[in-house]
Amino acid sequence: MEQQLIDWLVAKLAADPRLDVPNGDDAAVLRPPAGRRTVFCTDMLCEGVHFPSAPDYDPRAVGHKAIAVNLSDLAAMASRPEAAVVSVSLPRSGGQSVGEALLEGMLAIATRFDVALVGGDTTSWDGPLAVNVALLGSVAAGRLWRRDGCRVGDVVLVTGAVGGSLAGRHLAVEPRVNEARLIADTVAVHGAIDISDGLALDLSRMMQASGCGAEVDLAAVPIHADAVTAAKLDPSGGTPLMRALGDGEDFELLISLAADDAERLLGAIATGRLAGWPGTPLTAIGRVVADRGLVAVSEDGRRTPLPPSGYQHAFT
Amino acid sequence: MEQQLIDWLVAKLAADPRLDVPNGDDAAVLRPPAGRRTVFCTDMLCEGVHFPSAPDYDPRAVGHKAIAVNLSDLAAMASRPEAAVVSVSLPRSGGQSVGEALLEGMLAIATRFDVALVGGDTTSWDGPLAVNVALLGSVAAGRLWRRDGCRVGDVVLVTGAVGGSLAGRHLAVEPRVNEARLIADTVAVHGAIDISDGLALDLSRMMQASGCGAEVDLAAVPIHADAVTAAKLDPSGGTPLMRALGDGEDFELLISLAADDAERLLGAIATGRLAGWPGTPLTAIGRVVADRGLVAVSEDGRRTPLPPSGYQHAFT
Repeated sequence: MEQQLIDWLVAKLAADPRLDVPNGDDAAVLRPPAGRRTVFCTDMLCEGVHFPSAPDYDPRAVGHKAIAVNLSDLAAMASRPEAAVVSVSLPRSGGQSVGEALLEGMLAIATRFDVALVGGDTTSWDGPLAVNVALLGSVAAGRLWRRDGCRVGDVVLVTGAVGGSLAGRHLAVEPRVNEARLIADTVAVHGAIDISDGLALDLSRMMQASGCGAEVDLAAVPIHADAVTAAKLDPSGGTPLMRALGDGEDFELLISLAADDAERLLGAIATGRLAGWPGTPLTAIGRVVADRGLVAVSEDGRRTPLPPSGYQHAFT
Repeated sequence: MEQQLIDWLVAKLAADPRLDVPNGDDAAVLRPPAGRRTVFCTDMLCEGVHFPSAPDYDPRAVGHKAIAVNLSDLAAMASRPEAAVVSVSLPRSGGQSVGEALLEGMLAIATRFDVALVGGDTTSWDGPLAVNVALLGSVAAGRLWRRDGCRVGDVVLVTGAVGGSLAGRHLAVEPRVNEARLIADTVAVHGAIDISDGLALDLSRMMQASGCGAEVDLAAVPIHADAVTAAKLDPSGGTPLMRALGDGEDFELLISLAADDAERLLGAIATGRLAGWPGTPLTAIGRVVADRGLVAVSEDGRRTPLPPSGYQHAFT
């Protein structure tokens, strides 16, 4: 790391009991928690793609999002966050203050979710800001969520509300780590995925991995207020419901589990009996069926194919 | 990842016994090896900084270097490589072929050093190529090398030869992972660091962390042929020796250990008794002393302060 920025960061870091060697060596050394699997993921945020171009980005918000989207991946595996390493390519001019604000944003969310920042790398260049986080988590071997275990007859739940993220909250991602771990402690989940590219697309991915399909009750889909705003601002992007199904950048969880477990879980939340539940909405939006593909079920019972809409990454 | 590139990569990957969940879930799940510490590091390579700007870079060589520099950090901790996650920001036009060549370069070195590629993230943008690797390794708790344990009286060894890297081999980094693990199996090492920013600068960092200083025998420093070439091409950059001391990007190891252990180790290598040693030169270049700072000792015994020259990262 650029020495000045390292010094600034290391002065802010509390000693972490998971670390075996103090910060500042060639690599971080951690004691893996006994009896748990290691969970490992990475995400890079690029200026002008995942956040606005300078001067319109808030580096603190970018730092928050860079940690948050990785936490969302761990949430989809019902895992406990442990440690992160961070890489940033900073502008040559003003890089120190951008770097400090960015790391402040990271530190705030890392503290909230008990992530140790254990290492990193910084470059100054003439290119745009790019921020990479790699995150380690852990999970008890039998408690791990995967995306390929959904079973016919399962109910599909979604956390929070979806759609219109780019019109509002896409930097203020709130990863569902605590929700996932509470659910994993309460019921057996068969499949889970986080919604990064769009509800319909990510649901279709989970169904494809599991070898089945899903019916979605359109009236049940929790539409975020941002989706309503976005639909007003740009009607060409579809109705609020279409946006809820396809916009992406929601970082909510889709969870598939047996119908009686879903009922028990939703009942416990509704009656306040799930201790520690943070108040996040959890909504049943459909069910897993044997026929591949997605089907939309409208309020009057009409069934139509549901295209797996969402953000499709592709090269031109 | 951009779906097309993921599909391409996953088709190339062999199943890895360390993975608990097949590739393609939200995060990778690994079984941590019993009784070992987790070692974790990251490094980002940026176009125009760590490799030439388009069209002058070879994406395969960039992929190689991105894995190699992280392996060099693990080598400095005498650790065994385990798994990597990779992020790339690719040009919108031609990104698929750049991405494939890059990943081919990564796969080749990952296979050689038994690193499982377990996850990643790809973005297309209008910015320059940026490649991040985060690497996990493991090490037996008592076998770990650190940079802060050098003792007065230690001998300092360096692997390979140093200087002039930018004039030749800076993309073809050969990480000293196997050398480090063989040495760790043979003798007790007190301190180690890899040379990324310059022999003198990285040696001074190791001495500072250890609370001591070092004398460097100038005539003993193994000067790379590239340093001679570089000094001819650009005499303003100093003599070959000055380049060997300060150029950086060498990714050789500096190792500090008791004099009798150093003698035993060098003797075993010289006589071919260190089974598996890959033939890499290993040279005693000086010793650890109580007085802080670095001292250069010339062939005639003259002692002068040695400035900690090297690549100083800074913002303007």
